[in-house]
Amino acid sequence: MTLEIDGEIDAAVHKHVEVLLRRYLARRRAELPELAQTFAAAVDTLSDFALRGGKRIRPTFAWWGWRAAGGEGTGPRADAVLTAVSALELIQTGALVHDDLMDASELRRGKPTVHVRFTDAHRAGGWLGEPERFGMAAAILLGDLALSWADDMFTGAPLSDEMRDAAREPWLTMRAEMFAGQYLDVLAQAEGDESEDRAFGVARLKTAAYTVERPLHMGVALAGAGQDTVDAVRAFGTDIGVAFQLRDDLLGMFGDTEVTGKPVGDDLREGKRTLLVSLGLRYAEAAGRHADAEHLRGALGDQELTMATIDRVRDTLVEVGAVDELERRIERLTTSGLAALDASGLADPGRTRLADLAIAATRRDR
Amino acid sequence: MTLEIDGEIDAAVHKHVEVLLRRYLARRRAELPELAQTFAAAVDTLSDFALRGGKRIRPTFAWWGWRAAGGEGTGPRADAVLTAVSALELIQTGALVHDDLMDASELRRGKPTVHVRFTDAHRAGGWLGEPERFGMAAAILLGDLALSWADDMFTGAPLSDEMRDAAREPWLTMRAEMFAGQYLDVLAQAEGDESEDRAFGVARLKTAAYTVERPLHMGVALAGAGQDTVDAVRAFGTDIGVAFQLRDDLLGMFGDTEVTGKPVGDDLREGKRTLLVSLGLRYAEAAGRHADAEHLRGALGDQELTMATIDRVRDTLVEVGAVDELERRIERLTTSGLAALDASGLADPGRTRLADLAIAATRRDR
Repeated sequence: MTLEIDGEIDAAVHKHVEVLLRRYLARRRAELPELAQTFAAAVDTLSDFALRGGKRIRPTFAWWGWRAAGGEGTGPRADAVLTAVSALELIQTGALVHDDLMDASELRRGKPTVHVRFTDAHRAGGWLGEPERFGMAAAILLGDLALSWADDMFTGAPLSDEMRDAAREPWLTMRAEMFAGQYLDVLAQAEGDESEDRAFGVARLKTAAYTVERPLHMGVALAGAGQDTVDAVRAFGTDIGVAFQLRDDLLGMFGDTEVTGKPVGDDLREGKRTLLVSLGLRYAEAAGRHADAEHLRGALGDQELTMATIDRVRDTLVEVGAVDELERRIERLTTSGLAALDASGLADPGRTRLADLAIAATRRDR
Repeated sequence: MTLEIDGEIDAAVHKHVEVLLRRYLARRRAELPELAQTFAAAVDTLSDFALRGGKRIRPTFAWWGWRAAGGEGTGPRADAVLTAVSALELIQTGALVHDDLMDASELRRGKPTVHVRFTDAHRAGGWLGEPERFGMAAAILLGDLALSWADDMFTGAPLSDEMRDAAREPWLTMRAEMFAGQYLDVLAQAEGDESEDRAFGVARLKTAAYTVERPLHMGVALAGAGQDTVDAVRAFGTDIGVAFQLRDDLLGMFGDTEVTGKPVGDDLREGKRTLLVSLGLRYAEAAGRHADAEHLRGALGDQELTMATIDRVRDTLVEVGAVDELERRIERLTTSGLAALDASGLADPGRTRLADLAIAATRRDR
């Protein structure tokens, strides 16, 4: 079979996505001009990062959208669709490389982030100029490359004109929404915006649209779905996507570093105004716990965050009921998302797989 | 006529490009979701920057390539081609936004660079966190957006399948070459690489391929040109593109700030290992002027560069013959480029316009 791994795509979507990514990255690297061999070595760092893991959640949602809307599981059309939706992982690669740089994150998936790797190489080589500036430049350029290769992979997938045209709208919209969501996030940190509206806007654009809603939209559009189906999967995708972000907020504050691959309290250190933080501040103030609210505000963006500070923030969030409220919202969103899926008229096995994915993406032990 | 400005495209290519860019940016801004209105305000800064000037040299070379290879000057196909090649300006917008950030440049086209504008806004608002970090994040995201909109504009141009397929290869290759060239440039600065080979590689990839060779390649490919024509315009484009970069090296060192829009000595301050610098160092050493060579090395990357230092570097470059040698190379490259154009079999008026563009791009008073 063309994808060169055993079994059908349905049986292991993420593995098939990885095969396609590995092959695409190797081909583009081989096509780099002779003059650019030092750049090819840098591209290897990017490829390592892209292939190092991750759950391939975006192509997986897109694939099951395609299947649920009647797309076949094998054959040339199925292979072309998997190529088109695997490109979502290259967007994610570029976005993470740039995001880690913007957030000054040191670790990703338990290893040094891309800008840190190039900063370290500069320092180890005793090169000229500031190591951090070199790391920044390399991360910007490699992120740019990943984003442009994402487009190339999507546009180059051997889809019919009709299929490509149908998938183009969600593809375009998704990228603009993602950058908009990231900007809102950064702006909220800068402005110290504690409002639920802003936190919801960030979750809606940065996570829900980009991680679930638009990948699913792409999948069903590739299968030629009508407006009703598109609306239904978008409703499902929005609810599940926001719930996914809320679960992420909780894991970022209470999760195990071994599992998340990120240092404890990273969101807090970066000053992220998550919905968890927004509710925590509002509930703390309402309960008259002004000192706890001030303590939480002070912890946001604190580069020297101690475990004692993190522990007190955790206690506050639990005691004022913000954690319980987030759990309730996750449950409510998951329920309403699944109801939209039920009403969508989508077919099995895709429909059941989408429901399973939704539950897996939002549950406590994710 | 669809382009809504008076006159034919041939009579004012850059103005027609600007109309298309303005319209495209306005449309994409209007399509941003309601939730992203604060991002829309940031996009206005990007649009200002994209529309603020620049010579539109890349779409202009591409347009005249199209015309010289037999493409028509008016009608729906001509409009579609102009849209596809105008997308080159959005790549340039994204690349400049990121480049200015990487180089820590304060001014571009005589005004504050994008990261500086957002850094200033943060400082003026008295916001949380470091102003520079906010400026960096905004510039990364807006550059990413411009690069992704470039792809959207190119892929969305109403070309026939045959035309789009033909232009895709140079489009893909160009972007990878550009990022590779930028990386080589940054790496040469870090490693303090003084070799002519490296300086030539950077000029070849970062400027020649991206500014002349590939835009022209796109233009003739859109017109259905065969391999011989493609080879001829690539030979022309490489020579003229390298000559253009050498002229840029000279203007960067000796040019008038009023004309270049950049502070005097910017290349020096950024530590750019241009071919001018590479030759200057080699000739100075060969002439036994070790102190002058050391002085030039010390000036590279010097953030506190004084006019006295710049003046001595200028004197060295002139006295050791590096400036004369660069002028000779520019002349030789322009001559060989024009010879390749003559041998290309391309048609007028395109051929003459390409020759005029080549001369304009490489002459002293550019």
